[in-house]
Amino acid sequence: VHVVQTVSWSPDGRAVRIVDQRRLPGEFAECELRTVRDVCDAIRTLAVRGAPAIGVAAAMGLAASLLPFAGEPVHRLRDRLREHAEAIRASRPTAVNLPRAIDRLLAAAEPAGDSAELLEALRREADAVRDEDRAMCERIGAHGAALIAHGARVLTHCNAGALATAGIGTALAPVYVAARAGRQVHVFAGETRPLLQGSRLTAWELTRAGIPVTVLADGAAAALLRTGTVDVVLVGADRIAANGDVANKIGTYALALASRHHGVPFYVAAPTSTLDPCTTAGDQIPIEHRPAGELLEPFGTANAAAFNPAFDVTPAALITGYITDRGLFVDPARLFASLTATSESLA
Amino acid sequence: VHVVQTVSWSPDGRAVRIVDQRRLPGEFAECELRTVRDVCDAIRTLAVRGAPAIGVAAAMGLAASLLPFAGEPVHRLRDRLREHAEAIRASRPTAVNLPRAIDRLLAAAEPAGDSAELLEALRREADAVRDEDRAMCERIGAHGAALIAHGARVLTHCNAGALATAGIGTALAPVYVAARAGRQVHVFAGETRPLLQGSRLTAWELTRAGIPVTVLADGAAAALLRTGTVDVVLVGADRIAANGDVANKIGTYALALASRHHGVPFYVAAPTSTLDPCTTAGDQIPIEHRPAGELLEPFGTANAAAFNPAFDVTPAALITGYITDRGLFVDPARLFASLTATSESLA
Repeated sequence: VHVVQTVSWSPDGRAVRIVDQRRLPGEFAECELRTVRDVCDAIRTLAVRGAPAIGVAAAMGLAASLLPFAGEPVHRLRDRLREHAEAIRASRPTAVNLPRAIDRLLAAAEPAGDSAELLEALRREADAVRDEDRAMCERIGAHGAALIAHGARVLTHCNAGALATAGIGTALAPVYVAARAGRQVHVFAGETRPLLQGSRLTAWELTRAGIPVTVLADGAAAALLRTGTVDVVLVGADRIAANGDVANKIGTYALALASRHHGVPFYVAAPTSTLDPCTTAGDQIPIEHRPAGELLEPFGTANAAAFNPAFDVTPAALITGYITDRGLFVDPARLFASLTATSESLA
Repeated sequence: VHVVQTVSWSPDGRAVRIVDQRRLPGEFAECELRTVRDVCDAIRTLAVRGAPAIGVAAAMGLAASLLPFAGEPVHRLRDRLREHAEAIRASRPTAVNLPRAIDRLLAAAEPAGDSAELLEALRREADAVRDEDRAMCERIGAHGAALIAHGARVLTHCNAGALATAGIGTALAPVYVAARAGRQVHVFAGETRPLLQGSRLTAWELTRAGIPVTVLADGAAAALLRTGTVDVVLVGADRIAANGDVANKIGTYALALASRHHGVPFYVAAPTSTLDPCTTAGDQIPIEHRPAGELLEPFGTANAAAFNPAFDVTPAALITGYITDRGLFVDPARLFASLTATSESLA
């Protein structure tokens, strides 16, 4: 099972190499980000996307962007570090992973006594951000793989796969781990209008990994569930409220309703970092509404309005369980208790 | 309320004028069908679509296609009639309206004694097919308009509007009748992947008629229903089984599930001709599966398969009522009883 590597160091170790997701699935191209401008452009234009992958690319990109200035005195390098950090931080407003990764690198650079130490500290911290992301994916995969029997048919939505992380993804991680263990898995991928991350990205990365995939229109998912050919539904999450309500890509809620109606288990797979104990319920999660053009182009002549929320909220009552890097939880209260539990008590 | 006229006679009365739906919504163009080849091409290439509109265009087109041969003896004209009739009948395989319309014209031509009588009989029968279709739409509109209060917000799917009939549509007929009566109506139109009849056609014809419309991705309908901003859901039907199960455009079933979950009434509007007493239940309705390319183009590189049924089946239990040209029915048994009832007993 060859899973695509979305973010890595270039062979010379002086640039971040990313899969250019603007060109998928028509063309598989990688590009190398060397300057702060390269990094900002890649994030802003969605060459790299998915909150975890953005965080890793930002951390590695920030470290790489300072390498050409290794000969400068450390106070000059610190000025550049702050300048680059704020530029990258501002390149996309949404997820929490990007500012968190930047803050980690800034903190790691604090104790450095000279330029070489500073660059080395940044590199070490960027590696740690990447390694933790990969480990997070692997743990989600390990915790979720028990749900994927030999011959399992899995329905997913949007792209919560390797292309959204530095590792094997979140919702797709259990699929990859099961496939690695030799189990046959068939994935049904909702195309995910309006931006088609399902047909463009999920179908591409699974096909590349040798895992068979069938694409469907989002409106066809209920009909598919009715045929009895889906064993389990696995989706990602953008934010999980304290009561277990989940904000995820638009279309997830409809999928949860249809899954419940047909008795198909519906699991949310997400890193612990998406748990938001400060938001008590899903209706408090602010939902981004995106431009009408995403839906109406090339049909602009109709002068129609558009209802185009990027996310919807699935109530906890429709969710069979939560697969995180800390385990598989059925009860939202236990899920949130895992935030403060020690790793021993979770073992 | 200016509703688009999808099928009509040309000013000289020697051709069928249709709205070219291949060019909507980018361009509003009409074309005139004079020859049997014009008619067949228009039907085959979806310049005219929607089972009722196809039936009317076929009837009027068949009558028009014989006009240039008025000088021929009647036995030659009968040969041409049969030849044209079979060519038009074969131009699209799906709905029952097309062969029914052709058979009506063939029967109407039987008693004609000479060429002038034959052409006149065809013209009269073609007019009757068109007039009955328009009257059917008006009756559906009248029976359904009571559901559309002033300020009503209606959610629909696909295009069951004026563009699919020779009149004011089926699912949209109650909206037009309510708007004519001066009531404000706002329509939410599911875009209807993969062929986008909602954003291309429904949004266009409503905007043209001055009725405000908001387009949404099919996956967003459940989230919209959850906001409480939809008063009633109105969809069309391709076939209604004897137990009241309804086959309609893919995505309808998901909409019915979400409507039930949120307590929003879900109505099916369709002509009596879609009632199929010989099919006992929805699971016996054959479902057309369409090419993967509709979903995957321009993403063919993924080598993914596609689940692409054209229709799904909504069980009667999820349907609040049926609006037909013979009335509004809650009980499928009463709906089917209307097939054999006299018009007096229905009054």
